[in-house]
Formats: sequence, C-alpha cells, structure tokens
Amino acid sequence: MPADASLVDRLVARLVAGDPRALARAISLVEDETAAGVELIRDLYSKTGHACLVGITGPPGAGKSTLVDRLTAEIRRAGQTVGVIAVDPTSPFTGGAILGDRVRMSGHAGDAGVFIRSMATRGHHGGLSRATSDAALVLDASGKDVVIIETVGVGQDEVDIVRTADIAIVVLVPGTGDEVQALKAGIMEIADIFVVNKADHEGAERLVQSVTASLSLQEAPAGAWRPPVLKTIAVDGTGVQAVWSAVAAFREQAAPARESRQLTRQEHRLRDVLSQRFLQQVAARVPEEEWRRIVGDLAARRVDPYSAAAAVMKRMAE
Amino acid sequence: MPADASLVDRLVARLVAGDPRALARAISLVEDETAAGVELIRDLYSKTGHACLVGITGPPGAGKSTLVDRLTAEIRRAGQTVGVIAVDPTSPFTGGAILGDRVRMSGHAGDAGVFIRSMATRGHHGGLSRATSDAALVLDASGKDVVIIETVGVGQDEVDIVRTADIAIVVLVPGTGDEVQALKAGIMEIADIFVVNKADHEGAERLVQSVTASLSLQEAPAGAWRPPVLKTIAVDGTGVQAVWSAVAAFREQAAPARESRQLTRQEHRLRDVLSQRFLQQVAARVPEEEWRRIVGDLAARRVDPYSAAAAVMKRMAE
Repeated sequence: MPADASLVDRLVARLVAGDPRALARAISLVEDETAAGVELIRDLYSKTGHACLVGITGPPGAGKSTLVDRLTAEIRRAGQTVGVIAVDPTSPFTGGAILGDRVRMSGHAGDAGVFIRSMATRGHHGGLSRATSDAALVLDASGKDVVIIETVGVGQDEVDIVRTADIAIVVLVPGTGDEVQALKAGIMEIADIFVVNKADHEGAERLVQSVTASLSLQEAPAGAWRPPVLKTIAVDGTGVQAVWSAVAAFREQAAPARESRQLTRQEHRLRDVLSQRFLQQVAARVPEEEWRRIVGDLAARRVDPYSAAAAVMKRMAE
Repeated sequence: MPADASLVDRLVARLVAGDPRALARAISLVEDETAAGVELIRDLYSKTGHACLVGITGPPGAGKSTLVDRLTAEIRRAGQTVGVIAVDPTSPFTGGAILGDRVRMSGHAGDAGVFIRSMATRGHHGGLSRATSDAALVLDASGKDVVIIETVGVGQDEVDIVRTADIAIVVLVPGTGDEVQALKAGIMEIADIFVVNKADHEGAERLVQSVTASLSLQEAPAGAWRPPVLKTIAVDGTGVQAVWSAVAAFREQAAPARESRQLTRQEHRLRDVLSQRFLQQVAARVPEEEWRRIVGDLAARRVDPYSAAAAVMKRMAE
C-alpha cells in the first residue's frame, strides 16, 4: 500500500489534537506495518519524547492487568493522562480470556484521558518490539503523559521492551510455590521497582524477604537507585498509590539512567529498521523461485546457512 | 578472532567421533558467536539432518526440567542417544536455582549417550534462536539421535524455537489456578503433544478436559494429527513412556509437517544470518562516532528512525 501523505497528515493533526479515533487508527497503521504507518511515525516523531514510558512485566497470573488498571486510576487522580499497551501473547483459542482482561479495564471507558490497546504477539515475527515502540510513539505524540507497556515477561523480546522503558516494574506473586521460578524468569535484574502483588496471600512476606535479600547481594555505586520492594493487593487498590510514588521518585532521582536507556532504545530501533529494510531489499532482488531453491538446498544440506548467506550478500553487493 | 581452519577441522573430526569434550568446546564456540563457530557450522553442516528435534515448552513451574530428565531416561532405554539444550533465562541472582535444575539431570552424568547443555538468554540479543539452532546442529552432527530443546515458553523467541522443532511438546500444570493463564501463553496452537504434568495434583482432570475442549474447537483436515493430551507425574516417571510413544507416533504419521517445518526453520535461519551480516557491514562502514551521533539525533528527535535508516541504507549502497 503506497503511503497517502495527505491522509497521514490529516491523521497526525487529529491525533495531536487528541482525537481518540485517530489514535486507534494510527496504532492500527503502525501495527500492520503499512507504508502509511512508516509515514506516520516520520511525521509525528518530532512531537514525541514527552511521555514517561513505564514497562510492567511479571510471570503469568501475577495480576499485572489488575495492577495496571488500578495504577491507571492513580495516575488519573494525579491529573495525568495515560496510554496502555497490553502485549497479549494471543492464541486462536483464547479470544475470550483476553477479552476478559480488557473488559476489566472498561472502568476507564468513558475517560478521554485513558487509551488502552491490546497488541498480539502473533504475526509479529521479531517485530514485536518494533510494533510496540511505534504504538508507544503514537500515544506519546497524542499527548499522553504516561505510557504503560504491559508484557508477560519471560521471553527476550518482552524483556527488551521493558528494559528499554524509562522505568521498569516487575510484578511477582506469592503462594504458588513459584518464587524460585519467578526469580529464574530473567527479569529480576531489569527491575527499578518490585511489586509483590496479592500481598494478602500466604508467603507474601517470605517473597518480599527473598527479593530483598537477592537485591542486597548486588553491588551498586553510592547514591544509585535501590529498587524498592512494594506490596500491593491490586484487586482492592491497596499499595497502588505507593507504586506511583515510587515511579515519581525514580523519575526524579534516576534521570541519567533514563537518558542512557533512551539511547539504547534508539539504537535497538535503528538496528531493527535497518535489518528489516535490508531483508526487504533481498526479497526485492532475489526472485521467489531462487529463494525457495536456496532454502531447499539448506534443508537438503547441500549448502550451509553461512555460505548461502555469503552468496546472497555477494549478489546484493553487485 | 580469526577462524583457525585446522583447529576447526580437528574439532569436527573429534566431534563426529563422539568426543564429549569436543562437543562442549564446539557448543561454546557457536554460543560465543566466534568466527571459528561459523567455520565449524560450515564444516559440520553436511553431517547434520539425522537427529529428531524435540521442542519442549510451558509456563515456569510446570516441571519441564524433571520431565526432560525422565524423558531422556526413556529415550536411552529405547537405545537412542540424547542431546539436551536447556534455555535458561539467566539472571545474575539465580545461578543457584539454575544449577539446581542441572544437578537434577546429573543422574545421566556417567552416560556418554547423553549430553546436556544450559544456554542463557542473556547476551543473546535477538540471537537466541541462532545460538540454539547452532547448538542443535552441533549435537546433531555429533550423532545424537534426539535433540531436546527446553524453553520457558511465553516469549516470541522461545515460541519460534519450539515451533520450528520437528515436534513440539507443551507442558501444563494444574492446581495453581493458572489454567487460563497457561492458555493465554500463546503456545497452545504450536503443540503437537500436550502434557499435563503433576497429574496427581488437584484440578488435573479439569485441565485435561479444558485443553481437550479447546482442541475440539479447532478445525482440522481429515487424517491430520490430533494433538493428544497426556498426563504425567514426572517426579516418579508416571506417564513418561506414553509421551515418548506419542513422539514416535507423530514422527510416523506427520512426516509432511516435519518437512514443512524444516523449510520454515531454514528460512528463519537464512534471514537471521543475513540480518546479522548486514548489521556487521554497517558497523564496519559507519564510524562509531557517526553512529553515536545518529543515535543521539534520534533521542533528541532531530531525525526519525525511518529517515535515519534510509540515510544509512543509502550510504551502504554507495
């Protein structure tokens, strides 16, 4: 689809003016990786950089959606607007379950200061962080003060998304005997704030202590931010205000960390777009039939992947 | 590090002869993405294609490591050799926990027919599937009949790894109230075999029924493989033999699926190597200082990522 500049211009104008339908349309454009989506990001990029990006992750069942819902209400009470991107690893089996989560957020349905969008991981082959960061840029340009990206944290893509946010919150949950498993999830070292949700469940205190003990083993320079370990009961809102206060404290104290993450985020992004562009050029230059022959040769072990890639690279350089 | 061809030649010879130290060394070379690792894959590629790749995934705490341990014993009893790649999302906090898992596998320590290797996700920025598939190739070339790749399934990378295996096993666990969460994990549609582990826990039957019900909603052509839902108690070995029988049945009945996945796997791999090579060329052509300036311009919103990428692409084409 060729980019329609005037359509994109109009969309950006409506978006910046705060039209929620323009926002929804713009996110769809970037999510579908259309040419108009690229045009859109180009157009609105100079209008971004205002929003605070909050990444929230944790194992399945930690109550992240509910926490995000309550945190959204807290941020609204503080007079700021919120955009939420919920990364749902979708399955064709589970439309209902996901819908259920989103329905919970519908308490904000009448509030123009809140915009919520689910993004599926399906069909985003390696492009999940691209789609997510573009959607965050759109929300940023639309004037949202805080953009929350909620992922189920275990995979590399999801960890990357949260790690490069301005602030990363890791949500854990006691009582399922999963403490060690949660600690294994590869997400512990990225947290700026730990939240032990369902803090009224058995084992909450033990989980808080084990996380605190793990943290105390980490060496940190004097004056560095020490991730707090906060307890919440998201379903009734207990402790959620303290989470928001910790976010505010982090933003004040840890500005250099935020700046360095922004650079990392930009670099990831640039490398990602470059890869994508190069593979598009390869697809344009190497006929489909020849590509299939190369892949068939690989499967039949007639050529190894590095030699096959070298041959394609040589051809691209001609 | 320049590739030392004679060193690599000798390593491949030892590897193919079944020397376990050569195997360990070879996997380290490909894991560290050295030039020698590339040389190695080139050399041994024609000796691969024999092993059956089994991908095993599931949520944290499902007992995957124990199941893999018991399954390994089962495969050995059937007279076949086994290589295991356990993808551990590592954290600096959790060396102990991961070690604990690996120690459990040490029942196979004296058995030359079993080789086990943990791979961390850290430091494999987007290269996790590359490192994992190279390690699988090394195990394949070393003559292992079955190569098991165990991941914690939620992320896109992990799902990709398992999806492109010859056979994908998804492990679920009852009684933590996480059934719906497990169903949400985006891994349901990739399973060739479902295993409900900890089948003696409360809620196992309900979980089996809910997975079976979900499966019955899927349309499938006549004669297509229907994923069985098997119950195991991995800690005492109950049901593990049936899992191995189901793997054997799948291999007999679903050869066309296996072939099409092999092609998908090869294509992923080729695209991945091409991206990596192109980014290496960019790094060689664009001076560090200039790269940092571009990233800084992105962060300051002086340029958008697509325009910055277009400028780099133009330069690369000169």
